[in-house]
Amino acid sequence: MVTFVNVQNVASWISAVGVEPIIDGMVSYLEADFGRWDRFDKTPRVASHSLYGVIELMPTSDGTTYGFKYVNGHPVNPKRGLQTVTAFGVLADVESGYPTFISEMTLLTALRTAATSAMAAKLLVPKDATTMAMIGTGSQSEFQALGFRSVLGIESLRIWDTDPDAMAKLVTNIEPLGFDITVASSAADALDGAQIITTCTADKTNATILNDADIVGGVHINAIGGDCPGKTELDTALLRRSMIAVEYTEQTRIEGEIQQLEENWPVTELWEILTGKKPGRSDAEQITIFDSVGFAIEDFSALRYLRDGVEGTDFFDSLDLIADPEDPKNLYGMLDV
Amino acid sequence: MVTFVNVQNVASWISAVGVEPIIDGMVSYLEADFGRWDRFDKTPRVASHSLYGVIELMPTSDGTTYGFKYVNGHPVNPKRGLQTVTAFGVLADVESGYPTFISEMTLLTALRTAATSAMAAKLLVPKDATTMAMIGTGSQSEFQALGFRSVLGIESLRIWDTDPDAMAKLVTNIEPLGFDITVASSAADALDGAQIITTCTADKTNATILNDADIVGGVHINAIGGDCPGKTELDTALLRRSMIAVEYTEQTRIEGEIQQLEENWPVTELWEILTGKKPGRSDAEQITIFDSVGFAIEDFSALRYLRDGVEGTDFFDSLDLIADPEDPKNLYGMLDV
Repeated sequence: MVTFVNVQNVASWISAVGVEPIIDGMVSYLEADFGRWDRFDKTPRVASHSLYGVIELMPTSDGTTYGFKYVNGHPVNPKRGLQTVTAFGVLADVESGYPTFISEMTLLTALRTAATSAMAAKLLVPKDATTMAMIGTGSQSEFQALGFRSVLGIESLRIWDTDPDAMAKLVTNIEPLGFDITVASSAADALDGAQIITTCTADKTNATILNDADIVGGVHINAIGGDCPGKTELDTALLRRSMIAVEYTEQTRIEGEIQQLEENWPVTELWEILTGKKPGRSDAEQITIFDSVGFAIEDFSALRYLRDGVEGTDFFDSLDLIADPEDPKNLYGMLDV
Repeated sequence: MVTFVNVQNVASWISAVGVEPIIDGMVSYLEADFGRWDRFDKTPRVASHSLYGVIELMPTSDGTTYGFKYVNGHPVNPKRGLQTVTAFGVLADVESGYPTFISEMTLLTALRTAATSAMAAKLLVPKDATTMAMIGTGSQSEFQALGFRSVLGIESLRIWDTDPDAMAKLVTNIEPLGFDITVASSAADALDGAQIITTCTADKTNATILNDADIVGGVHINAIGGDCPGKTELDTALLRRSMIAVEYTEQTRIEGEIQQLEENWPVTELWEILTGKKPGRSDAEQITIFDSVGFAIEDFSALRYLRDGVEGTDFFDSLDLIADPEDPKNLYGMLDV
């Protein structure tokens, strides 16, 4: 039997434990896994593109546990009442090849994306940052805000979205939690006085959410939304004058903001900063960018964290997913024929 | 909610409908899908190899429906009471990216592998074939035997396996169904008088299950077991004097018997024979080989067939796998925090 955590159970588990403690815990799992980078099987995700969006499989393995995530990205979905991103994930035992754990990952992806942004921010954000601009206030935004508060204590937000209802939703959801939120009048206005800028928009186009001229020295840009060929958010001039950190270079060159740059444009992988192999932020005036696209190891960490988190609780079921006849050579014997 | 067919329901469905009618029906779905080959997104499967075996993801899409299979291959598993191959599969809607259907695929893979062999055999087997040699009588063997009877009327089997218990199991399982079975004394003995030879062994090595010298002209070889880098069953001299049919050349060059040959060794894809683009068997003396490795489109066809087959029956459940908040931009609103 395979352990199965459905949507209701993931939601109940998050509600019981709390978003910030979970993101905190996930950051430690992420740091542990990024810290043993060489142990992982790494491959760019396998994407199936259509006019409507993309469906991807993201596998990885640390030699003991194998994991993968199914995830879609369909920017037009919200207009018809559906999620832009939905996902589920699986862990399996490398030694037997048997799946052991399956979970919804729509909620979990929002948490792990925020946790990864928070892990990167710990390495790159300027000292004494207090204010974050958030451009794009869709499904991911609450989790990003809570992640940055949990890890860096950021409580002051300046938000902007082309959809006023989406901004109102963010305010309603998290202002009661103690955030000080300013609804800006434009993306440029949102940047005013912010040391951290999170961009998280969904258009599948080469958009310019941030203009180079609007960006002052010393900020950290947490660029979430550019994560697909032909889908970017940042001005190339801005990229060229910034220090760029990525998850896994081979995949980010295809999907990230750096798809706009030359193939050998220098970037730093997060694990290199984390393990001290390369420096993070060099000085107070440097602009740093985390060119986030989402990498399989993050889902692996998140699934491990959930698996460990629900152990001993009631937040899971069992799934009759794997045929396991008494005599392994007698699969046919399972039939009543 | 996602439709879910668990192991018990797949077993009950097969028992209710019957193995042979299902393989017959699957062959028609396979022929329909192989017949519109150009419509599919095709990519070699994504494999994660370890000392113990391999875990693979096999995605494809016809532009309307996306499908993938998770499957492992662990030759040592039976020695510890586990299946060599276990699998599950998913269908999704390309337009929304939402998964719609999930099923166990260990049993289903055995059926679709037999159906694919049967489809290839229809194109390649010499006229008036009556007898099939079966080298390897593990989990797949009953399904292969039933597939060949269903499609080509083969009722006479000559079987061989290094494990006598596995041979006894095959006899016990299918002799009552009207097969005439001879238990051979060696692989070479099994070939005597057979016009069709099915090889289906599990060792993850470059074995030589069939020696070139033992093979007479005019036979069709259904080579199932060589399906992984470093895992082959046939003598290269035999390959060089045979007409070789494959599923998807790019993947078979990595995984099939032809990994032993030059990279440009001529092969024919099944869909080319099926659509009349290339000839199948040229004459009665030609040796034909179906170098089967298993391709994603086959799983796609099998999942489609099962989905259509269980519709209107009780052989499925619903799974709460995909988070679907009322306001798609308010994922956070699903939490009770």
